[in-house]
Formats: sequence, structure tokens, C-alpha cells
Amino acid sequence: MHINQTDDLMVADTFHTYTLLAQQLNAINLAQGIPEPIMEKEINEALLTSLNIGWQYTNSHGLESLCTALANEYDNEFTKDEVLVTSGCTESLYLGISASSKIYGNKIAFLEPFFPAYTGFAALLNLEVTYIPMLAKDNTMCPDWDSLERAIRGGTTTLLLNTPHNPSGWVMNAADAIYLRTLTDKYGLFILVDESYRYYTYDAEDANAAMRILYSNNDHILILSAASKLLSATGLRIGWMLGQKSILDTAYAIHLSTTYCHPGPLQQLVATILNNRSNNWFLEIKNHYQNKRDKLLNALNRVGFKSIVPAGGHFLLADYSNIKNDIDSNKFASYCAKEYKVMPLPTSVFYRKGTTAHQMRFSFSVTMDTIDNAISNITNSQ
Amino acid sequence: MHINQTDDLMVADTFHTYTLLAQQLNAINLAQGIPEPIMEKEINEALLTSLNIGWQYTNSHGLESLCTALANEYDNEFTKDEVLVTSGCTESLYLGISASSKIYGNKIAFLEPFFPAYTGFAALLNLEVTYIPMLAKDNTMCPDWDSLERAIRGGTTTLLLNTPHNPSGWVMNAADAIYLRTLTDKYGLFILVDESYRYYTYDAEDANAAMRILYSNNDHILILSAASKLLSATGLRIGWMLGQKSILDTAYAIHLSTTYCHPGPLQQLVATILNNRSNNWFLEIKNHYQNKRDKLLNALNRVGFKSIVPAGGHFLLADYSNIKNDIDSNKFASYCAKEYKVMPLPTSVFYRKGTTAHQMRFSFSVTMDTIDNAISNITNSQ
Repeated sequence: MHINQTDDLMVADTFHTYTLLAQQLNAINLAQGIPEPIMEKEINEALLTSLNIGWQYTNSHGLESLCTALANEYDNEFTKDEVLVTSGCTESLYLGISASSKIYGNKIAFLEPFFPAYTGFAALLNLEVTYIPMLAKDNTMCPDWDSLERAIRGGTTTLLLNTPHNPSGWVMNAADAIYLRTLTDKYGLFILVDESYRYYTYDAEDANAAMRILYSNNDHILILSAASKLLSATGLRIGWMLGQKSILDTAYAIHLSTTYCHPGPLQQLVATILNNRSNNWFLEIKNHYQNKRDKLLNALNRVGFKSIVPAGGHFLLADYSNIKNDIDSNKFASYCAKEYKVMPLPTSVFYRKGTTAHQMRFSFSVTMDTIDNAISNITNSQ
Repeated sequence: MHINQTDDLMVADTFHTYTLLAQQLNAINLAQGIPEPIMEKEINEALLTSLNIGWQYTNSHGLESLCTALANEYDNEFTKDEVLVTSGCTESLYLGISASSKIYGNKIAFLEPFFPAYTGFAALLNLEVTYIPMLAKDNTMCPDWDSLERAIRGGTTTLLLNTPHNPSGWVMNAADAIYLRTLTDKYGLFILVDESYRYYTYDAEDANAAMRILYSNNDHILILSAASKLLSATGLRIGWMLGQKSILDTAYAIHLSTTYCHPGPLQQLVATILNNRSNNWFLEIKNHYQNKRDKLLNALNRVGFKSIVPAGGHFLLADYSNIKNDIDSNKFASYCAKEYKVMPLPTSVFYRKGTTAHQMRFSFSVTMDTIDNAISNITNSQ
């Protein structure tokens, strides 16, 4: 392994680094996307009723009850045999990218800014990456689809799509989905959808309809997600992927040599929660998150940030050029921690090296109290 | 991915296949190595006291309490920072082989017969494998170390050692360990030790002393193991690896892109059990397993099998040449299921394709009642 590859793999450690720095500088940590643990009680209750499953090997595809619940989650467009249970979205991404690169080759497109862990997959799996810029448009950012089509003509076979998008908050709409289907029809584009933030959509009413357009009767797609954000339980390490058997079988073969299977009681508790949830449940959580987003966004803009308004997800990007134009985002993160006693994540890790973006990523996945305290710190600093 | 590579990856599915076949043929399943769940009560009790850890991201290296308990397990020869918590021994093997092949190259030696999943790692990681035969000696099998030294002279840099060995039951002794250290001194041999069956040793009093000789002050070793067999909980999916930082850091970087971290309460419960166990605990389990081994072995030999006496592990190899000399091990497995109403695992998956071994693998990890019923079926068939 080349040293720079190890560096790229270690990018996923950045979250941990800034969490530690927040502690050292006594700043409120809005750097790491740990959701407020609003589901812990339900999780522990469902766990107790799941212990009868026992702690021995489960079917390597996943517990039948969970596979059935997840097939149902996607309108039974996939059968329960077209679901694979993984160790969080990390393993879903690893298996999805491995499988697609074995079948369709290693030329892949990422939206930029990108989730920093993607850099690790690129290094580990020798990907040849083309970056599709997110273009600023009023106070949002949207993918430059023309740039994607150029990349495909240049040999890119696969798109790793993240919707709702981390860190920009962009959410795919129906027009985007229809356009992406034409790219598959025309060029055979294969699409990996990282849907970690499913249901966390605020100004994007047709998000699920758009997803349905994308995956319906499509053998050129793998959906990757996890309980981590959906159930606000990043440490459950229960993830999943859905796709037609032709592609899922390859991911399954690799899965046997990476993790083999996952804890039965943890799979069962996720199935129980998914099966028993009420229709209003995600709506309430979504409204709660939208309130946190709006409060934080207003406070940041009041002190001079210029924020992208995220239509979905747990994060907001804020441009700091009007506050300080002469320092990079790593330095500005430390400045924030000292000046505002709030620690955001610098966006340098979301862009290729050498790219300058005067943006910070603030998480609003923390509790409302933490948001209120952060806002108080930010506004009192003036 | 070539089709034959997918086949190789799917070998790990064999256990599942023969488990299903046992059900279909109404035979007692001694094919898959699922241990009797003797620890479920302790596990569930320890889990309840571990829920306060919560279900959010843990440190990607592993929970500090578990890393400390595991360092202690190996006489603190490794610090707690030289432990990495994984998703069972499967992820330990994947990370260990990935890391060693990135640092020392992809030329690796396996003992043959080998654990079938090793074939999957070889296919996934493009390993160039040399097979070190286990030679029959009286009623045991031992590695042909001369053949290993020849392989090293031919370019092999890494040995994947499995002790206690699945399926032969061979256990490394002090003389073996001293010899392997000379190979590291002389040629720089790197050793991965799959120690999944640690403590399950019957006729091998110095097994732990031999391991200590191998790992003490050795920067050319990674130890790979898991709670799966140690705590009779194959579905906990808590594994670990220990090694000096120079090599463990590379495994850690890859781990960030495969599973990222593991459930905190499950890690904590393993730490609790390891810290609280009595000195007699493994001794009692070992004696229980030895009784099961001896009973099954005697019954098989009575009906004409010629058994290897396993010094350790959960399995025994039995030669069936005296019963039927004209069919391969796959066919003989079905014959066993019909004739004896007992389903062993054919050894074809433990050898390279084209190798003929008239051996079956019988698991004695099941309960004493199951062993007694299997013995009754075997002896009544006459």
C-alpha cells in the first residue's frame, strides 16, 4: 500500500479527530453526525423481545423477518431474496462498490462535495473517480448532470449517488430520477444510491416518489442504507442493500468473506421497529429536525455566514467568506471552536485536495438543547 | 469477476448447503460447526448490564474495556492500542490478509486441508497460495514444515496458520513455535494466526505456552480470533485482532472502509464475561468437549471409520475407506445421512479441487444429547 493510499483510507477518521478537538477546546461538537439518541428506549424494548433468536449464526443474507420488512419498505419492488443485511452503510458501500466494479469496471463518478469515507473506498478498491460538481443555485446546490453525461461518454460506467446528500442537503427530485433512467437506457449507467438519510427531507415533498421512479423495475441499481440514521442508532451496525439478484449475488459472495452474517437479535429488533412504526412517526422526527435546521441556519446567517438551505439530511453547509476570507476551512474550524465555542467540520475533507471552499459543515442531528446552546454561544460571541 | 472466482467465494456457503440437506434428509446435523449455546444465559445477563453504553458509534478501534480485556488475555504482550475489534473472525481474517498482502505481498501459504472460507479470501484478494500438506502420522496429522520452508525459498512471504486446526484438530506445540520463529528470523516470514478455537485443546497441554513463544516480542505476527467459538456465540459477531502497531495500523485503515465500528453493548458484554470468568471455566468446557469427542470417535471407529484423533478444536476427521472405497466425499456425505441418519461435512471443500480424500468431518460442538442421538443412529444402523 502506498503511503498516500493509507492517508486516503484514514480520511474516515476525520470525524473522530474533530470530535476530540471539540473536547479539547471545550466547544459544542457539531462536527460528527451522531444523531440524538431518540430511539434508544424503543431499541432496548424491541431487543428484549428479540433475544429468543439467540446468538448463533444467522442466514448470511439476513434474518428473514428483516429482509421481508425491508422489501416492504421499498413497495416490494424487490423480493425478500433481493435484500442483503450488512454491517451498517459502510459495509453496504464496500460491497456495493466492490460488486459494481467487478461487473462494470472501476470507473465511477462521485458528486463533489462527497462523503469523506468515499475516498477510502476509492483507495481500497482502486477506483478511477470522476467528480461531478454540485453547482450553487440561489441558496441550494445541485449536481451538474451535464458533467455526468460527459463523464459517461469518457468511460465512467457507475454513479455513486447520495440522496439526501451529505454535506450539501440536496435531494433528488422526480425530474432528476427520470433523467438518470435515460442515462441507464442510453449508456447502461449503473447507479449505487447511498440513501442513509431516507425520510429526512424538508423541502422535497416528492423524494420518495423520485426514488421509486429510479428503482422501479431497474436492474442497474443497488440501494444502500442502514439503521444508523433511520433509527438514530449509528452503533447498531445493521445496514442493508437491495437490488435485483443478478447484481446482489455478487455482493453476497463478497459479503461471505468480509463479515459473513450479523447478530440475529439486532436484526430482529430493527424488523420489529420497522413493522410497528406508525405513519406519523417519521413525520414527527422530520418536523423536529426541520425546526433544528431552521433555528441553526438563522443564527449562523445572523452572524455573517451564508448558508446553503439543505432540503434533506442532517447537515448544513455555511460559507464563511464574509467573516474571514483569508484562512482555509481547517483553520476556520479551530477559529469557530475558539470564537463561538462551537466546533463544525471543515469541508476540506469533502473536496479533492487543493480545492478551496470557504465552507463549514454544521450538524443539526444533536438535541434541540444542544442546538439552543450552540446558538446562544454563536450569538453571544458578537 | 471471473465465474470461477465467484464459485470460490461461494465455498463459504457450503456449511449452509449441508445444513439444509441434513434437514431435507431428516439427519442429525454434524456438518456445520455451530457450538451448543452454553453461554446464552451469561451473554443475555451481561448484555442487560451493558445497555448503558448506548447504540451510537463506538471508537473504531474497539471499546476501551474490550481492548483492555483482550490485551490482558495475551499477557499484555500487546497494549490496548494494539487490539482491533472486528465483525467476527471473518473480518479479522479479511483485514489480516488484506494488510499483510499490502505490506508483504500476496504470496501466502495455507495448511491443507484448510478452512473452506480461506478459498474465498484467496479469490477476493488475488492471493497466490501455496498449500502446506498436513501429513498423517499414526492417528494424527501434522504440517509438513519442510514443505513450508521450500515455499518460502520459492517466494512465499506469509503463512496463514490455524491452531487448533480446522478440520484436522492439530495443535501447534512449543517445538513448532520455536521453529516458526527461526523462519521469521531467517526469511522474514510473516504469520497470521487464526486462533478461533483457542482453549479447546485436549491432548496438547502446552498450547498456550506455544502461542506465547510465537507472539512474544514479534512484529511479524497478527493474531485473529473471535467470541464465536470462545464464548459459543457464533452470531455475536464480535471478533478481534492483535499485533504490533506497525502492522495493525494498516488493518485499521482498511477496517474504516469495511465495517467502521461495532455495537458497543455487544463489545461490553464480551469484556464483562472475559473479565469475570473463573479459572476453571474453560477447563470445564474443555472437559465436556473432550468427552463428546471421545464418545463420537469410538462410535465411528466401531462401525468401520478410521478417525484422526483431534488434539484440539470442534471437529474430527474420519476416513471411510473401509466402509466404502468407491465414492467421493460429497456422495459419502449423502450416504451417511441416509444410512446413519447423521450428516457430516464432506472434506472435498477442505482440499483443492481434484484432490481425493476419503474423509468426512464430524462436528462434536453440538450438545451431548445430540452426540448421544447421533451415536445411537450410527450404531443402530448396523
